[in-house]
Amino acid sequence: MAQITVAVDAMGGDNAPGAVVEGSLMALREMPDLRILLCGPTEALKPLTAGAGDVKERIEIREAPEVIGMHDAPVLAIRRKTGSSMVVALMAVKDGQAQAALSAGSTGALLAGGMLRVGRIKGIDRPALAPVLPGRKNPFLLIDAGANVDCQSEYLRQFGLMGSIYMEKVMGVSRPRVGLLNIGAESEKGSRLYKEAHQLMASQSVYNFTGNIEARDVPNGDADVVVADGFDGNIVLKYTEGLASSLVGMLKDEMMSSTRSKLGALLLKPALRTFKKRMDYEEYGGSPFLGVSGVVIKAHGSSGPVAFKNALRQAHKMVSVDISGQIAREMAKLAGLNDKGESDPQ
Amino acid sequence: MAQITVAVDAMGGDNAPGAVVEGSLMALREMPDLRILLCGPTEALKPLTAGAGDVKERIEIREAPEVIGMHDAPVLAIRRKTGSSMVVALMAVKDGQAQAALSAGSTGALLAGGMLRVGRIKGIDRPALAPVLPGRKNPFLLIDAGANVDCQSEYLRQFGLMGSIYMEKVMGVSRPRVGLLNIGAESEKGSRLYKEAHQLMASQSVYNFTGNIEARDVPNGDADVVVADGFDGNIVLKYTEGLASSLVGMLKDEMMSSTRSKLGALLLKPALRTFKKRMDYEEYGGSPFLGVSGVVIKAHGSSGPVAFKNALRQAHKMVSVDISGQIAREMAKLAGLNDKGESDPQ
Repeated sequence: MAQITVAVDAMGGDNAPGAVVEGSLMALREMPDLRILLCGPTEALKPLTAGAGDVKERIEIREAPEVIGMHDAPVLAIRRKTGSSMVVALMAVKDGQAQAALSAGSTGALLAGGMLRVGRIKGIDRPALAPVLPGRKNPFLLIDAGANVDCQSEYLRQFGLMGSIYMEKVMGVSRPRVGLLNIGAESEKGSRLYKEAHQLMASQSVYNFTGNIEARDVPNGDADVVVADGFDGNIVLKYTEGLASSLVGMLKDEMMSSTRSKLGALLLKPALRTFKKRMDYEEYGGSPFLGVSGVVIKAHGSSGPVAFKNALRQAHKMVSVDISGQIAREMAKLAGLNDKGESDPQ
Repeated sequence: MAQITVAVDAMGGDNAPGAVVEGSLMALREMPDLRILLCGPTEALKPLTAGAGDVKERIEIREAPEVIGMHDAPVLAIRRKTGSSMVVALMAVKDGQAQAALSAGSTGALLAGGMLRVGRIKGIDRPALAPVLPGRKNPFLLIDAGANVDCQSEYLRQFGLMGSIYMEKVMGVSRPRVGLLNIGAESEKGSRLYKEAHQLMASQSVYNFTGNIEARDVPNGDADVVVADGFDGNIVLKYTEGLASSLVGMLKDEMMSSTRSKLGALLLKPALRTFKKRMDYEEYGGSPFLGVSGVVIKAHGSSGPVAFKNALRQAHKMVSVDISGQIAREMAKLAGLNDKGESDPQ
């Protein structure tokens, strides 16, 4: 059995390193072909892995004395803090010692590190952050959720490709429906960027572009992949978090407003718990950074052990299906189309 | 007592003309100084106003045989269908026969009509759609919710001004907090447009700019005015509708999942009704189209009689406080600042 090695930034996130190590041990027990390089200060990590027992042989501490904080300037930190747990994890991927890197640390730093330390897949202009979000009918992937503001239309076309491959290979959706976030269903709707992107996406058949998707239909899950500029995608991502918690808050206010409603709320407790779980996108693991030549996953900053375990399962899956190789191959097809398209007079 | 005259597009919206007329009569009974010009085909409207009784003298039918449909091309329809109920209503404002126009018809056509038939306030580059949305702590105004895609930073600065005046004069918020929608709180965050807009907004003191507001904090009501490009604003508006209904749907799924939860849901019925009402932005009337020289309000397409009545109350209030005059005066101040700013070397 070939092993899959994931380099884990043990110092990233609000609950590091405790929850990171706990989640890592859980993942090792669940996946017998998983190996973990735990990157961080040995003296802090050693006691935490003491109870590893049966999986001890598959977890190795990689000394990294520095930490990139949430307030470090991303690019600068990636360049200078070469001994940080995040850079050490990314370098392990670059050097081929690991196939994937996982971190719950600074998003900005991880994106910069993915670009600068791991590098892009040939043909991909801009790697993109691509979390899977809960939809009413089915989960959907949002790409780009914030890696690139001021996108060009070609980037959006590539996001569609990467998102489609992820949903098919990792999430098992056959021929994913790729929609372009927009303010109307008609192809001529939207800003200049989105109108151009629509044309580019409509003129290829490497993936299944289903047209514009209006924001109101996004939470339904009417598209499996929702393509957006990183600014708009980040607005959607953050707004989802904000609105969901605001709605639940407003609902709670109403539930506490009378004895009758309090009793109702009590009876509904288990249902509300399931609801909350359904809304919780950590269930799907972390946000993959698609387009870098290796697997890089951003776990939510507030991840607990189970979220880390899920993100490791996701990393394992992404490596197993060779996501980067798939993207490289399909991108070559898309680029071929593009060259042909460009030589045609329009 | 000076009368306030509102020209109402009797044929706009899903429930026209019945709900429009019913809401108009309710409004007339509530506001003794209100007068309504009901624009539409006389033969269709006459029977509906037959029961007006005590308010009959304050409602006048203005013959308009044509209707602008939802599929008409906006600019073309406004130019060609001069006999449509929407154009007749807008022209009444232009000609000074009414101080406000209200329509639940095509948003695109109403925006085009506001620009082409009513005209802009001096100094305002782009009028903007500005609905008030429910927030957890307090309602907030979103500007621009979709009138202008591909904005320039100066437009956004003006949106801040108009939104601030509306929240202060119409909604009674003192010194409204104006936030710029963004992907981070720091001033250097965001796309080129938003970075520039931030600088422009921060360099004036005509209104109270409180900095960037992250999408996750928007539904809380942390800003009284949320400024955005029309593309992003429309995404937020539509996504709010979609997510709220999707969340309520998911919640219902869970509530129907067991006998226990069904009983809980039954007990919670009144609380859920209040919750739904709180979420319903029609409570605040329609979306004003700020920046045109007159009051123009877009009512939601699905408005019922009460929503129309509320929108008429809103029109009445906007006229009473002379919203267009207020905007013109404050815009002159802002433009003065701008000229000074430009002559200073940076």
